[in-house]
Amino acid sequence: MHIPVIAPIAHAALSQSLAAAINNKTKPLGSLGRLEDLASQLGLIQQTTRVTIDQPAILVFAADHGVVAEGISAYPQDVTWQMVENFLANGAAINVFARQNGCALRVIDAGVNHDFGVRAGLLDRKVANGTNNFAIAPAMSAQDCATALEHGMAMARDLPGNVVGFGEMGIGNTTSAAALMHKLTGQSAAACVGAGTGLTPDGIRHKERVVAAAVAHHASVREPLDVLATFGGFEIAMMAGAMLQAAHLRKVLLIDGFIVTSALLVAARLQPAILDYCVFAHCSGEHGHALLLEQLGARPLLDLGLRLGEGTGSALALPLLHAAANFLNEMATFASAQVSGQLGEHAG
Amino acid sequence: MHIPVIAPIAHAALSQSLAAAINNKTKPLGSLGRLEDLASQLGLIQQTTRVTIDQPAILVFAADHGVVAEGISAYPQDVTWQMVENFLANGAAINVFARQNGCALRVIDAGVNHDFGVRAGLLDRKVANGTNNFAIAPAMSAQDCATALEHGMAMARDLPGNVVGFGEMGIGNTTSAAALMHKLTGQSAAACVGAGTGLTPDGIRHKERVVAAAVAHHASVREPLDVLATFGGFEIAMMAGAMLQAAHLRKVLLIDGFIVTSALLVAARLQPAILDYCVFAHCSGEHGHALLLEQLGARPLLDLGLRLGEGTGSALALPLLHAAANFLNEMATFASAQVSGQLGEHAG
Repeated sequence: MHIPVIAPIAHAALSQSLAAAINNKTKPLGSLGRLEDLASQLGLIQQTTRVTIDQPAILVFAADHGVVAEGISAYPQDVTWQMVENFLANGAAINVFARQNGCALRVIDAGVNHDFGVRAGLLDRKVANGTNNFAIAPAMSAQDCATALEHGMAMARDLPGNVVGFGEMGIGNTTSAAALMHKLTGQSAAACVGAGTGLTPDGIRHKERVVAAAVAHHASVREPLDVLATFGGFEIAMMAGAMLQAAHLRKVLLIDGFIVTSALLVAARLQPAILDYCVFAHCSGEHGHALLLEQLGARPLLDLGLRLGEGTGSALALPLLHAAANFLNEMATFASAQVSGQLGEHAG
Repeated sequence: MHIPVIAPIAHAALSQSLAAAINNKTKPLGSLGRLEDLASQLGLIQQTTRVTIDQPAILVFAADHGVVAEGISAYPQDVTWQMVENFLANGAAINVFARQNGCALRVIDAGVNHDFGVRAGLLDRKVANGTNNFAIAPAMSAQDCATALEHGMAMARDLPGNVVGFGEMGIGNTTSAAALMHKLTGQSAAACVGAGTGLTPDGIRHKERVVAAAVAHHASVREPLDVLATFGGFEIAMMAGAMLQAAHLRKVLLIDGFIVTSALLVAARLQPAILDYCVFAHCSGEHGHALLLEQLGARPLLDLGLRLGEGTGSALALPLLHAAANFLNEMATFASAQVSGQLGEHAG
């Protein structure tokens, strides 16, 4: 399997042109805050001062997790396929927010433990009916992990637009994400494990022990792809593949919550420059996410206590991405609007 | 002048109905975080579990400030009328963000020191050509203050929609807002004064001395309306009037940055229940805003380092208000989507 090469976006001359374009807009210097950074990042990704948000799409990857046998989720495994049905019926939060913000939605069966048959609106990329229980054995074989990554890469190649949001559904997947984080960052299991869909404090302590024991059990695993195969899910591996390919194609990556960020963590160990292409939609209410973002040097746009997954944070942050592009493209300049500039005295 | 009476929104039975509606949606309990609080607030304001965002509008009030004679701004006073022209030509940030988010925009001359003549798209409610320099004399007479408030009230009565965002333009108005905050909250001048459109550290210290000296000079002023007349601007007074009337009519108030919040501070001293109707769009990068929000017990939705005014934060937060209404109205319930509920064991 070939991992796509990702180039850093840094470009001194273009950075200067973008700064000049932003600073000439009719507003005090720097007064659009984070939107100015975002506009500049968009320009560097797209290699232009005339940025576009073209046909944004959110990919929602669903899969099941063998580790649910350890009793680490507040909901039964059937909720994974039931929620996929809910996506197909347009009834879930991500349907509502994607529709509101003019964002296409693609739902992918990466490895749900359920036979959907052939269904309109569902992309069948099922690698297997859920992973193995990684408390006992690796979650998936190296071959299945490669298959999942390759499906993800192909999907990113097929996307028409230049902005890709990521989302997921999979009962048990905060446990998988926590194990990836614990293993790859070296942060304690307690720092990585949270309530997921709503565990009690006792439930969280149990999940923490499961994660710590599993990572200890597979202590000899070292390489990022092996770590992914050992603790990942099919949705996480497929996302990682889609992220790598999308960044290679210089698309903007909209990163959602804890699980999506764990897929990015793996991708960034393979191709660190992928982080240049990421817009971090929000800081999740899930316990480990703030620290995981910090580990990646990421500053999220929103902080609303969301912990729903599905790509809901990505969809909710999309209007801010549009705002960054729109102010850069549409605002008047001091010269064009004949507005006076700063006074010399006292002006910062 | 009659100040509109504002009723608190608390209603135990409706709160319970809203919580039940929110908790039955196909998502883990509480997983939409702040959006759930927002949906509940919308329901209580509108007295229904079927909320609507109907014809949202942002009112941008512009006026000039005599206190600019003290050298407290990084930009010349002419920028006020020049930016009003920019609003009318659709070239400012607020034009871009309001257009993007489907929000009507109304531009009001509350007291700009410029003769615009009769202009399409500009509402002429000019009280005078700017305020007096409050370092020396009260900014406006009690009569002019009442006139500004009444214009604002009439404007809110005329609005067709149920969501009103507030914005402003006025060179010097962070000085006016800082003086109102210093006087009404008792916080130090240093805690209330910031860089505005971009003062140097020396410029900020000078502005701080101007604010401290002016508030000391008018130490005997006590009543909120007298404080408003002494330190306010025509745009601030007109906003306060529009806010009071809009909340009386049970509209949602979208509160922007430091200056808009200073108008709300005055309004809240007259009718404390007005805060129930407020959605705080963002925490501004302007120095005093975080503390002013804290004084009002307010939790802003966005924190993006914006410090542009014009209502830009209000426009950028509008999609989150839509998201709150949409999830409440459009998401499936566990029962309707046939999704399993929480397990007993470990479920929080």
